Amino acid sequence: MKQPPLVEPRATLVPAAEVAGRLAGLQAGLSARGLDAAVIVQNADLYYFSGTVQRAFLYVPASGEATLFVRKLAARARLETPLTGTVELDGPRDLPGLVARRYGALPRRVGLELDVLPVLEYRRLEKLFPEAAFEDIGRDIVRQRAIKSAWEVTRIRAAAALAVAVCELIPGILREGLTEAAFAGLVEAEARRLGHEGIIRMRAFNQEMFYGQILSGVSGTAPSYLDTPLAGTGLSPAIAQGVSFKPIRRGDHVVFDFVPVREGYIADFTRIFALGELPGELRRAYEAALRIEAAVVAAARPGVTCRALYESALAGAASEGLAAFFMGHGAGQVRFIGHGVGLELDELPVLASSDLELAEGMVFALEPKFVLPGLGAIGIENTWLVTPSGLALITESPEHIRQVG
Amino acid sequence: MKQPPLVEPRATLVPAAEVAGRLAGLQAGLSARGLDAAVIVQNADLYYFSGTVQRAFLYVPASGEATLFVRKLAARARLETPLTGTVELDGPRDLPGLVARRYGALPRRVGLELDVLPVLEYRRLEKLFPEAAFEDIGRDIVRQRAIKSAWEVTRIRAAAALAVAVCELIPGILREGLTEAAFAGLVEAEARRLGHEGIIRMRAFNQEMFYGQILSGVSGTAPSYLDTPLAGTGLSPAIAQGVSFKPIRRGDHVVFDFVPVREGYIADFTRIFALGELPGELRRAYEAALRIEAAVVAAARPGVTCRALYESALAGAASEGLAAFFMGHGAGQVRFIGHGVGLELDELPVLASSDLELAEGMVFALEPKFVLPGLGAIGIENTWLVTPSGLALITESPEHIRQVG
Repeated sequence: MKQPPLVEPRATLVPAAEVAGRLAGLQAGLSARGLDAAVIVQNADLYYFSGTVQRAFLYVPASGEATLFVRKLAARARLETPLTGTVELDGPRDLPGLVARRYGALPRRVGLELDVLPVLEYRRLEKLFPEAAFEDIGRDIVRQRAIKSAWEVTRIRAAAALAVAVCELIPGILREGLTEAAFAGLVEAEARRLGHEGIIRMRAFNQEMFYGQILSGVSGTAPSYLDTPLAGTGLSPAIAQGVSFKPIRRGDHVVFDFVPVREGYIADFTRIFALGELPGELRRAYEAALRIEAAVVAAARPGVTCRALYESALAGAASEGLAAFFMGHGAGQVRFIGHGVGLELDELPVLASSDLELAEGMVFALEPKFVLPGLGAIGIENTWLVTPSGLALITESPEHIRQVG
Repeated sequence: MKQPPLVEPRATLVPAAEVAGRLAGLQAGLSARGLDAAVIVQNADLYYFSGTVQRAFLYVPASGEATLFVRKLAARARLETPLTGTVELDGPRDLPGLVARRYGALPRRVGLELDVLPVLEYRRLEKLFPEAAFEDIGRDIVRQRAIKSAWEVTRIRAAAALAVAVCELIPGILREGLTEAAFAGLVEAEARRLGHEGIIRMRAFNQEMFYGQILSGVSGTAPSYLDTPLAGTGLSPAIAQGVSFKPIRRGDHVVFDFVPVREGYIADFTRIFALGELPGELRRAYEAALRIEAAVVAAARPGVTCRALYESALAGAASEGLAAFFMGHGAGQVRFIGHGVGLELDELPVLASSDLELAEGMVFALEPKFVLPGLGAIGIENTWLVTPSGLALITESPEHIRQVG
């Protein structure tokens, strides 16, 4: 009888040293804040700190061994996590007793991911640990996760390579008459074949995305509830972003704004395809985007604030005479030019009016884009690694507009 | 100059009478509980009660007109919502003043979606309305949304038709040697062309899904953190569900467990494809699933409890000698046989040990499935509407195993 696999045989497991380093970082933060322990429950954070995503509580004392208490599925957790302390849990009610037995006492001050934990879930934890005081550590975790290890950068490079590979297949796919929806489907099929994992995790409440945005012509000018410069109409007001049934026509350009996901890691990447001659305004805006990108990249290095980079980009757009169209138009304009990527699409650093300084190991997407009403959206997006001497490109692909047909 | 579209031209808008009826239902609940108002913020609920998804607060007084306070994007909201009260909001800080001006006073008791609202978002609302007491209305909303209008059933039927259409294309797509990932991509491309909206909304914390589960052979036996009977290994432990790189081989069967989304509405549907001869155990389990389905369908009508249906299914599986494999195996076994569908995949009714009674207008997926270690998962899933006289089938498609090649 064939044994059922519990882990995809080609998958990489998170190395023990990675998890140990991450937990040490979390524990240093707990100690500094005088917290006794953290209880981690959110999928992306669970994967980061334990190497596995289960229905589980990861209990991390300020010092000592962490324990993964797993409701579903301990057998799979043990195959995936390098942690040795994996305990099967019948239900949440058993958690306090097991913690007390394992650690000798119940924690009095506990860090939780209050930025993502729903109120009713939080209240359940309050009832389980009635003597404990809870504090948010979501923001600390986000700050810790902003600095990527070399192992993580390798994963993000693999995601980026997937996006670049799909981009190179587009000239063989894109043709006049396809609807945006049909075109997206064909492109996404190639991404799946190459290992795109589908689900794009986002941390912010209510934010959601499907492969990025593949938009043609004026579709790029439809903004939405998303915190993105372009969104598209979507197929209905229910999920009002992404592709429409608009056919791609001669004279249109296509914005391929693509979010690859491999082994949980995300990159972000935008290139432009043109079917026929692009209007001069769009072409000029594209060249402006490239100049703004180059200026930000030249200025970026550890110690530079996000604000300095953001303001230099705004100044660049203004000097091009395109300030009103930069990162959206009118009420659709967003107030950032880039965002961290990793296990979630909306990580730190956010390149916005923020005091946060770039630091070695940060990985972010830089996406200077313009939205020209009546014409469309256009711009460039690459994912970059912060190194001691400046930025290193992760999404390696020529920046020119691809002429198709 | 072409004007940019803000709404996909072929999209349906939610009719004014729909929204009015839903708000009246919500208001009746607020009055009954002595709440002054509800503040709705979550995407699916916003769409349900306003017909649009924006970064917005939908303020619903216990009586009188609701107001949609929109941060991003009021112009699009006005095109989509039948509500006449749409107010542009610079930032959350302005909300209390605008509410006081519009309604003459600030609310003292406010209902919020505490089942989905993150703690830090909740605390922001506490600060905005420091005099108010907040109560959870998420569970009331979920109960209200369980009863679908005729308009909603039409939308769910359209989603179901998409799943059935894709299913019928599979014999032309499925072939030996394709990896699960490549096969899924080709199937998903057809779904996109036909209007699948991609994003599958789930209400429960940490639950996430991508198109459902397309699994072959023993892949169907890999369980996961998901609250589903089958999950697959996924491509990595980071997103440990769904397709793998396993090639589909002669002798495998494929479980096509597919979640279509059209105009925000979801159905759920499973059919089986076989490449060659299916092992007798799987075939017998499939026939048992059909018998269990038939028995539940025969018993289901308004007033019957979910528990009665769940227990009859368990008894059916036991009498088939397959109790240990029903709805998963070992620690992977889940404790339900069906779930409501609508704007979210995990709606009421949950066909589990629950006192909830079926009621006219409920729509749910019934999915008796077996997981046979070393062989694979198999079963049937249809989406059903509760009518006064019993269940009406929404996913109309023959139930036989499709022989391919």
